Amino acid sequence: MKASTQLQLNGPLLLQQIQALGQVGVDAEQGGRTRIALTDAEKAGRDLLVGWMRELDLDVQVDRIGNIFGTLRSASDSGEQRPLMMGSHIDTVTNAGALDGCYGVLAGLAVIRAFRDAGVRPQRSITVGAFTNEEGVRYQPDMMGSLVHAGGLALDEALNSIGTDGTRLGDELQRIGYAGSLEPGAIVPHEYIELHIEQGPILEAEHTLIGVVENLQGISWQQVEVKGNANHAGTTPTRLRHDAGFVASAIVAQLRTIAVEAGSTLATVGCMKFEPDVINVIPRKATFTVDLRDPDEARLVSAEQRLRRYLDEIAEREGVSIRTEPLVRFQPVIFNAELADEIEASARRFGFSHRRMTSGAGHDAQMIARIAPAAMIFVPSRGGISHNPREHTDDEQLIQGAEVLLDVVSRRLGAS
Amino acid sequence: MKASTQLQLNGPLLLQQIQALGQVGVDAEQGGRTRIALTDAEKAGRDLLVGWMRELDLDVQVDRIGNIFGTLRSASDSGEQRPLMMGSHIDTVTNAGALDGCYGVLAGLAVIRAFRDAGVRPQRSITVGAFTNEEGVRYQPDMMGSLVHAGGLALDEALNSIGTDGTRLGDELQRIGYAGSLEPGAIVPHEYIELHIEQGPILEAEHTLIGVVENLQGISWQQVEVKGNANHAGTTPTRLRHDAGFVASAIVAQLRTIAVEAGSTLATVGCMKFEPDVINVIPRKATFTVDLRDPDEARLVSAEQRLRRYLDEIAEREGVSIRTEPLVRFQPVIFNAELADEIEASARRFGFSHRRMTSGAGHDAQMIARIAPAAMIFVPSRGGISHNPREHTDDEQLIQGAEVLLDVVSRRLGAS
Repeated sequence: MKASTQLQLNGPLLLQQIQALGQVGVDAEQGGRTRIALTDAEKAGRDLLVGWMRELDLDVQVDRIGNIFGTLRSASDSGEQRPLMMGSHIDTVTNAGALDGCYGVLAGLAVIRAFRDAGVRPQRSITVGAFTNEEGVRYQPDMMGSLVHAGGLALDEALNSIGTDGTRLGDELQRIGYAGSLEPGAIVPHEYIELHIEQGPILEAEHTLIGVVENLQGISWQQVEVKGNANHAGTTPTRLRHDAGFVASAIVAQLRTIAVEAGSTLATVGCMKFEPDVINVIPRKATFTVDLRDPDEARLVSAEQRLRRYLDEIAEREGVSIRTEPLVRFQPVIFNAELADEIEASARRFGFSHRRMTSGAGHDAQMIARIAPAAMIFVPSRGGISHNPREHTDDEQLIQGAEVLLDVVSRRLGAS
Repeated sequence: MKASTQLQLNGPLLLQQIQALGQVGVDAEQGGRTRIALTDAEKAGRDLLVGWMRELDLDVQVDRIGNIFGTLRSASDSGEQRPLMMGSHIDTVTNAGALDGCYGVLAGLAVIRAFRDAGVRPQRSITVGAFTNEEGVRYQPDMMGSLVHAGGLALDEALNSIGTDGTRLGDELQRIGYAGSLEPGAIVPHEYIELHIEQGPILEAEHTLIGVVENLQGISWQQVEVKGNANHAGTTPTRLRHDAGFVASAIVAQLRTIAVEAGSTLATVGCMKFEPDVINVIPRKATFTVDLRDPDEARLVSAEQRLRRYLDEIAEREGVSIRTEPLVRFQPVIFNAELADEIEASARRFGFSHRRMTSGAGHDAQMIARIAPAAMIFVPSRGGISHNPREHTDDEQLIQGAEVLLDVVSRRLGAS
């Protein structure tokens, strides 16, 4: 490990930057910070990040969808070289933790800083990217910046997205001064590595430090609307009921069965609404969301089909109508095996506990995987909690994760 | 049937009064009328009713909870006689039909009018009562006026009820001018008969005109709160979930099983709320209501117990906590058998199709049954619909129901 004596991660500075960025948009009352994409708070976060990139004398470029790239050029790079890219995002949900996204971006900066501090010029350019609107709180779809970068969504369509507040994304991007001139996708990574907190409970539950993320689940979101008849709770015999609330509940219970029987499938009903929502009136209507995930496309399709058959069956049996509306559908992603092997080998060399795993959440890496070899590194999330002020990873684990990232990057660049 | 040649129901005038009262508080946009107890609209309805009572030269009395009584005195009544009472209520829910409650009050007036029109003085005084706040929309509990009348709720407690709009019931009663001086319960009925629309689908489904209501279901309302853990829908394995939404849904499904297996028990979950109600977050909390009804107290208790056991079982199995809060609990009421026989005999004499039945909804009659022999007569509700602008009973059925009421009253008074 030649270079590991050369390249030293500045852990304390990484933690300090995570804290500093975490102060931007902080909500003293509700806790956490709210830095929703393309708001004033997020502009402040972008400014801070760009300032740190300039301190490292990186070549900072902003593309037309607002993605920010900071590049440490190799000696041989005249601007045409495909860089090794690290990245994630710095936008947040409402009352978020400080780590989701920011950790990957700032650890990327820390890796580049290690090269700078050691005075080592990489053999290939290294870029750290912060992608626009990963969270999709105000503008749909989520993971938008990386999706546009990978050519999966037309720039104009993205710029014309209308937010939940009625604003147009392109206008907000102009307003905050981050409508850059670079064409999206102009910087094609040679390889892409994203370090992220797990946002799930597995690593913590298994006392494991490093997650070698070899794939990412497919996601199927739909909205289901059940229409029955509102009637008096005290006077309508069970056999004459068309109870939209009961039907919705039975579907939720059935989804658990589908998930358990499939083994790898996850099924979640996060939103549920009954109408008219009165104690002694049989619900006329129930509306709910279904979130299905599976790392295997065939099994995901199978879960969707089992649900579809159950909807038909219970609609017939209970005399209700059921309408479904697809919201989001992403196929599973298999990350680059060579990169995953590299991450695993690095964890092993450090003596860090590690395991192969599937990412349950969506990440920018899944978009970049369309155009370049990509992989992810996870560190534990306490209690599996994320999108919450209580999101937490121990400082030591944050530094150890970044050390793995530095090690992998330097090996990919032949610098170790 | 001597007197039936003498006593003639004025059907057209009854229908006309139902229509006129139904215009008070009418909502041109949403449909129906909204005459919530002790609002300006309900005061206008009271004024109309009292005017009609005075047109019949009745002795109008208002008690301290605002119940209105109009009495046609018998020759022998010096004010001490227990009257035969008919009654119901004229307050409504939001966007109500024109019949719920009003039909019973105005049919009572029509019965008294038949005596007036025929110049017949009854052998016992006849009273028609309109009880305050039967619906319980703004002030809890519902059936308040009749409950206070029957001594089941202290007057002061009722007057101090705080409404959903922050008002005090006693103040609103003063404001609309219906805080009377009569002590509640001063007028003890000799017998009480309430004519009402079914508010359920049974009579219509069985093509039956007259429901001889021999009992009224017990009602058990509770609120259930399930607390689990919010976690990411994509990263939390099924076995590590404490999904409050799934648990609530499984309970709703189980309630259907409890109802079907018990046969006579009705179980309804009308209100349901998930928190945080986000598509990709496992619900941290689910809150819902349970409405259980059964005409038999032992079976109602058994349903409550089966639910309780299931709550304990699923809380243990899924690692959630479940808290229940009782909201309303009324034991079943058995109406007076002699009165029910009288109603049935009357329907038979008219040649009207009829059946014995249980009231699924709560009614003022159940309160008055605490202090006097009481019974109810039902007529069909189209589609079982009530508490809705689409509430409907055919005019002919409304008149036929009132004819049964007149016949029963005149027989009980020896006037036929």
